[in-house]
Amino acid sequence: MNVTIINIGDELLIGQVVNTNASTMSRLLTEAGMEVKHTVVVGDVYKDIWVAVDEALRESDAVLVTGGLGPTKDDITKKLLCEYFDSELVESEVALENVKRIFAARGYELTPVNRAQALVPKNCEVLNNDLGTAPCMWFNSDGKVLVSLPGVPFEMEWLMRNRVIPKLQKTFNTDVIINKNILVQGIGESFLSDLIEPWELKLPENVKLAYLPVAGMVKLRLTARFPNGTNQTNLNSLLPELYKLAGQYIVGEDGETLDELVHKTLIEKGKTLATAESCTGGNIARLLTAQAGASSYFKGGVIAYSNEVKECALGVKHETLVAHGAVSEETVREMVEGVRERLGADYAIATTGIAGPGGGTPEKPVGTVWVAVCSKDETVTQLMHYGDRRQQTIDRTTNQAYSMLIRLICQKH
Amino acid sequence: MNVTIINIGDELLIGQVVNTNASTMSRLLTEAGMEVKHTVVVGDVYKDIWVAVDEALRESDAVLVTGGLGPTKDDITKKLLCEYFDSELVESEVALENVKRIFAARGYELTPVNRAQALVPKNCEVLNNDLGTAPCMWFNSDGKVLVSLPGVPFEMEWLMRNRVIPKLQKTFNTDVIINKNILVQGIGESFLSDLIEPWELKLPENVKLAYLPVAGMVKLRLTARFPNGTNQTNLNSLLPELYKLAGQYIVGEDGETLDELVHKTLIEKGKTLATAESCTGGNIARLLTAQAGASSYFKGGVIAYSNEVKECALGVKHETLVAHGAVSEETVREMVEGVRERLGADYAIATTGIAGPGGGTPEKPVGTVWVAVCSKDETVTQLMHYGDRRQQTIDRTTNQAYSMLIRLICQKH
Repeated sequence: MNVTIINIGDELLIGQVVNTNASTMSRLLTEAGMEVKHTVVVGDVYKDIWVAVDEALRESDAVLVTGGLGPTKDDITKKLLCEYFDSELVESEVALENVKRIFAARGYELTPVNRAQALVPKNCEVLNNDLGTAPCMWFNSDGKVLVSLPGVPFEMEWLMRNRVIPKLQKTFNTDVIINKNILVQGIGESFLSDLIEPWELKLPENVKLAYLPVAGMVKLRLTARFPNGTNQTNLNSLLPELYKLAGQYIVGEDGETLDELVHKTLIEKGKTLATAESCTGGNIARLLTAQAGASSYFKGGVIAYSNEVKECALGVKHETLVAHGAVSEETVREMVEGVRERLGADYAIATTGIAGPGGGTPEKPVGTVWVAVCSKDETVTQLMHYGDRRQQTIDRTTNQAYSMLIRLICQKH
Repeated sequence: MNVTIINIGDELLIGQVVNTNASTMSRLLTEAGMEVKHTVVVGDVYKDIWVAVDEALRESDAVLVTGGLGPTKDDITKKLLCEYFDSELVESEVALENVKRIFAARGYELTPVNRAQALVPKNCEVLNNDLGTAPCMWFNSDGKVLVSLPGVPFEMEWLMRNRVIPKLQKTFNTDVIINKNILVQGIGESFLSDLIEPWELKLPENVKLAYLPVAGMVKLRLTARFPNGTNQTNLNSLLPELYKLAGQYIVGEDGETLDELVHKTLIEKGKTLATAESCTGGNIARLLTAQAGASSYFKGGVIAYSNEVKECALGVKHETLVAHGAVSEETVREMVEGVRERLGADYAIATTGIAGPGGGTPEKPVGTVWVAVCSKDETVTQLMHYGDRRQQTIDRTTNQAYSMLIRLICQKH
């Protein structure tokens, strides 16, 4: 069963907005075992949308369309689908109730413009959009399916997870899919592949393994596929063998990213964290604090970009900086222990390095980074050598710090 | 003159990677006055790429293809283009010299696999890729053009700016395009539109205005278009009238983002900055430190998530927190003045607020944020009311702080 995604919007074609909808939808569909054949972006142009819809319905079993459903005049998807499917616009009771509910909750008057959002082609089924006023419309057409979703990312994602994917699975009676992510850090993709080959060769035929490398980490994704109603493989039963081979590199299971894993682990254990960042410049803290609930464990941090701040805010000794330099094991150790103590946290993270492009020396070239984590009882430091690409060094250092912290908390180092 | 973009890669269709190439290319082409008709993503599948190329060449003047040029076996673009254009692979001297140069610079042996990167279809012109070993290939075909670029984002962007767009402009003798960005903050898009309507109506016919809203800021983009060789409008001459109407909201000209503008301004003025972030959690610092050269002005910052840290690291008085709470004008004022003084900076930024979803009260609902900036002589505070979406509140607070800082530095508040 395969899918074509069509994202509509002039803002995408002028490069004003990055098309995250395409990747979110592709990821969710892939995890549900459906194949995305291709994705297309077209502008708010009637003829272009028509051609894209027509071609997509010829080549794919299902076509998912986002955008062009708002209350403004640019939005032409609904009118076009009405004509394409030879239908007429009628007021949907389900959609109207939803619009009313949302306006009531926000305490606004319902305007005629917004009431018009409940108009939908007569021959579609409305899938209720709990998070917004734009309707999600499902069309059946000669054994194929077209679904029109709003382009607002969080509405689209909620609808995909809760309405569209379950209904696609039922309609096409697709296989059951189970995924399991294993987050691996501290080993390159090709070395990992060699290391776990004996395990990979013995995986059941209905289980596939994907390597998804990102910023110094590799996400392994196991996907099992079964016909509906048959017995299901237990993916967890495959893991002990993997741990025997590569356990020292496995940081965690499930979750998409290491910052999510740190967030979850600290909340579960009821422990607190402080950070002292030099070369990562706040990136470690901002990824954690972007997640709701971070205030329950994150005490705060110091971004110690200059040496004065390392001294005055973290208590790094002047002699240490003079004798060993800002990028050294001695400095990162004093940074991590200083911030943990001063901010009164259970654990701390510290980073110091040369992100570049300037600042390198023959002894400490651009990409030299020290990372440290500590608890009350223990400090762990690690020297890394990254390349000369600034953002990549920041991202890799961030993941290195997260994984060292998780290993320290779980006593797996 | 219009363009279709084809991005090739299985990693895009499974949603592992967000397709930033499409938006970067679209933005650069739009700024050069070319129209992107649509963008397509296809997997590493011979037939799918062939069909996409064939359709794109039928409907557009130029087709830009990324991906599928690396030295590994998945990469099939070169072989396909060779067959599509009925050519044969030959070793390109230009491409080989480039591969040798890059390997020599990195101190690596040239392997046969990498030497094969210099093989290109006989009928293409190689555009030199200064940043990588994959060649950029230009094909002429019945008055149309197809260009194949590597998918590595920084190589692609460099090639677009330095090779592909200039050659497209010459080949199609396109109009000359001049853009000017004006960054506006503190007023919504529709109010801004009403405010500057008299100016907009008087713009010369060959000048277009676009509103590009992002995170509480509106980027106005003026685009002038002239046939090659004619006299050019001076966009700067249009600005005094705009300043008369909306000068109080204009934060700066040129640049894409406010963090770039802060970076540039502080370097130009030779002034230093410190930050004290609560609800933005490090986001203000990490956007600045992501830019090379930030260490010349950024002293450091404190992420004061908990009240203890506000007291111990910033010197906020305990009585202030008790009497007014963490989210208050009094607290943000002590934060900003405390961090400037303790870190010895010329300027400082502070934020404190309730990003949500938890932590709101009837008096201070989720989305309540105080922002402050200060110099040695002056402190400016501002209360904002954002909504209940955490990331949006963080992003808007960040832009609010940057624009207040620029206004303070330039004495425009």
